[in-house]
Amino acid sequence: MRIDNSPARGTRDLLPENVAVRDHMLKSITDVYRTFGYQRIETPAIEDISRLQGGQGGENEKLIFQILRRGLPPEIGAATPIRDLVDLGLRYDLTVPLTRFYGNNHARLPSPFRSLQVGPVWRAERPQKGRYRQFYQCDIDIIGESSVLAESELIEATSEALSAVGLDGITVRLSDRRFLAALAAGAGVPEDNWDGFFVALDKLDKIGWEDVQREFQEIGLPATAVTAVVEKISDLAELPGAKAADGLADALPNMPSSAIEDLSTTMACLHRLASERPLSWRFDPTLVRGMGYYTGQVFEMSYPGVRGSIAGGGRYDQLIGRSLDRDVPACGFSIGFERIVDLLNPDGRRDAIALLADNDVAVADVLAAARHLRSTTRAVEIARRSGKFGAQLTRLGKEGFSSFVHLRLEDGRVVQGSERPLATNDAPAAG
Amino acid sequence: MRIDNSPARGTRDLLPENVAVRDHMLKSITDVYRTFGYQRIETPAIEDISRLQGGQGGENEKLIFQILRRGLPPEIGAATPIRDLVDLGLRYDLTVPLTRFYGNNHARLPSPFRSLQVGPVWRAERPQKGRYRQFYQCDIDIIGESSVLAESELIEATSEALSAVGLDGITVRLSDRRFLAALAAGAGVPEDNWDGFFVALDKLDKIGWEDVQREFQEIGLPATAVTAVVEKISDLAELPGAKAADGLADALPNMPSSAIEDLSTTMACLHRLASERPLSWRFDPTLVRGMGYYTGQVFEMSYPGVRGSIAGGGRYDQLIGRSLDRDVPACGFSIGFERIVDLLNPDGRRDAIALLADNDVAVADVLAAARHLRSTTRAVEIARRSGKFGAQLTRLGKEGFSSFVHLRLEDGRVVQGSERPLATNDAPAAG
Repeated sequence: MRIDNSPARGTRDLLPENVAVRDHMLKSITDVYRTFGYQRIETPAIEDISRLQGGQGGENEKLIFQILRRGLPPEIGAATPIRDLVDLGLRYDLTVPLTRFYGNNHARLPSPFRSLQVGPVWRAERPQKGRYRQFYQCDIDIIGESSVLAESELIEATSEALSAVGLDGITVRLSDRRFLAALAAGAGVPEDNWDGFFVALDKLDKIGWEDVQREFQEIGLPATAVTAVVEKISDLAELPGAKAADGLADALPNMPSSAIEDLSTTMACLHRLASERPLSWRFDPTLVRGMGYYTGQVFEMSYPGVRGSIAGGGRYDQLIGRSLDRDVPACGFSIGFERIVDLLNPDGRRDAIALLADNDVAVADVLAAARHLRSTTRAVEIARRSGKFGAQLTRLGKEGFSSFVHLRLEDGRVVQGSERPLATNDAPAAG
Repeated sequence: MRIDNSPARGTRDLLPENVAVRDHMLKSITDVYRTFGYQRIETPAIEDISRLQGGQGGENEKLIFQILRRGLPPEIGAATPIRDLVDLGLRYDLTVPLTRFYGNNHARLPSPFRSLQVGPVWRAERPQKGRYRQFYQCDIDIIGESSVLAESELIEATSEALSAVGLDGITVRLSDRRFLAALAAGAGVPEDNWDGFFVALDKLDKIGWEDVQREFQEIGLPATAVTAVVEKISDLAELPGAKAADGLADALPNMPSSAIEDLSTTMACLHRLASERPLSWRFDPTLVRGMGYYTGQVFEMSYPGVRGSIAGGGRYDQLIGRSLDRDVPACGFSIGFERIVDLLNPDGRRDAIALLADNDVAVADVLAAARHLRSTTRAVEIARRSGKFGAQLTRLGKEGFSSFVHLRLEDGRVVQGSERPLATNDAPAAG
């Protein structure tokens, strides 16, 4: 009889060696974020469906796992709308819950509040290789800080966090929604069409300049304006980092001076940071980032050899405030947790001693021997002798044990051998 | 305008001080379990609804949050059964997923496999004080170990884990389903009614002997048999721990000798453990534990001053095997995570320096000063000067900072003050 034990479609089981890598990564990252003052909060996985469908989630709102109301009759009446059957959903990001959390708890939080969130989110995406319906997000946010101190600190904290998991040499790419707005306005795109303009530009990575220009034309941009925009962008992209702010002011006289000053400040911080840490940065006039809620600077991090970005974020001053009916400045950065985990290698080795006990040694004696061998730092796992001695040692080595101790009876007395190393084997644990 | 920011009914937000206590507890417990060789695995929160409703979950199956199929039409046709609308559900425990996980991955796991699971589960219980619809479970299980080495090790590991969070002086209560079966059989309860017999006995804590006896009668036990059972139980409860196994053999000649031997072995281990660690133990003939899947020894831990148990488990040799269509011995122990968290006190203090920066200090200088002050162990959080100096220091103390460093401009140069302590304040962080 064949029994189907696979996890729900589009989800996966995490084996000990997978969890070990993830836990190591989580600990490295959260340890760094803690030294910057970020404090971890936790919200429930389930939220009211109306909150999840409030418009903040963009396309993700189509991917919600919706939860059936409790206490429904066993059969549903004719023409019942789906929305009458559902009252909750699984969160698809950590930003919607953060907005609600801050509204619910702001009186008990410091201001500014540095939030750290790590946890699973769920999206009913079409299953495909490397994409899962349950995956982790790792977000830091500063709520209540209106100056670009927030942006620079988020970038620095995240680059340090990535460095802690061994990802040195990242490139920070920086832009600003206010720059994009000025670019669109300057090109004569009516404000109604800015979103379409941003969406088209955002696809540049995937579809290339030719198709982006076609999309510009489709949203009604005249051919001359398209050419002007493309030229402006490529001029700005070639400006050396330190001069980008000046170049922007020249190229886009309609850009607000506060936006220029903010970019100038962030660039000065990045310049200084890059002089002390192994990272580089540049102004990227083609950087949009998908979410519609960004209001100021946006940024992403790239890592050599990895397509796209491994982290991204920006300022969103008009979102958190919706939960309080007043303006609350906010800025966040999200690490592509699953992408980064995939860059790290599971090791499979455990610093663990196998206490190999002959079967005639009394259970209480085996446990006592393990207890005395074990310490806060030394893992001791009891294994009963079985099969050929050498074969069992090989198997224990494959299972990741670093050494073994043999426990046996001699003339009725328990004799404990000395600790001996097990052959290293790079293969993951196997049964 | 009043906006409702409360979390979904029956769930809660966890503030930084709550998460800090939980993280501390999780780390303490999992660090101990790791030294015993338990390795953490992770399964998805969502499982196929048919698996969750397979009968293993008992009453919990009535409390499943069911997830709507994707791609349903916007309106449901007449007399559609609910089961046609649902394909997934949120897990209500970690045992159903473990069974599936082992079936799915056993070929890649060592044998015996020591599993550690920590994570949220969901139950649509009627909301009440201290009970939440999302709560953590923390389970260890040994799969593939048929001897009672497993039982004794699980008990020892869990008592060490509880000790690591400061809960010394626990009492282990031990029983065995095979004892209960022999008791029921000896009293003349037909095998069909054993479950009812167990269920009634299980309620002893809550309803007392009088009502338990009434329930015994209701399942058809004659009055004389009821008296005999109650006498037998109270005799056994008074046996000194070391003699309980002998007493059992005398009192219940129909109990299999293997069950007596197993209890005798576990008792010897507990006796030895109690001589080295601050814990006590006893055989508890009234201990049942609710889940129907237990097949051998069952155990619970009590802590002085706490009603009921704070951890419990037992052997369930016929569950894991269902996923493989062959017998797989298994034994598990579950810590009452939320109950124990409630016993620990949030501290509210953070070992963090507030870098208090005057507003005329350039952002890049503030960030650089923080960077140089910060280390892998020292948290440095930037705070902008605002309001009266003394009032801000008081507020920072209340927010949990341990010290501050003042950063200011003097004749255009950045001057960094020395680190000075902040007044201790036991109140939790407040804004």
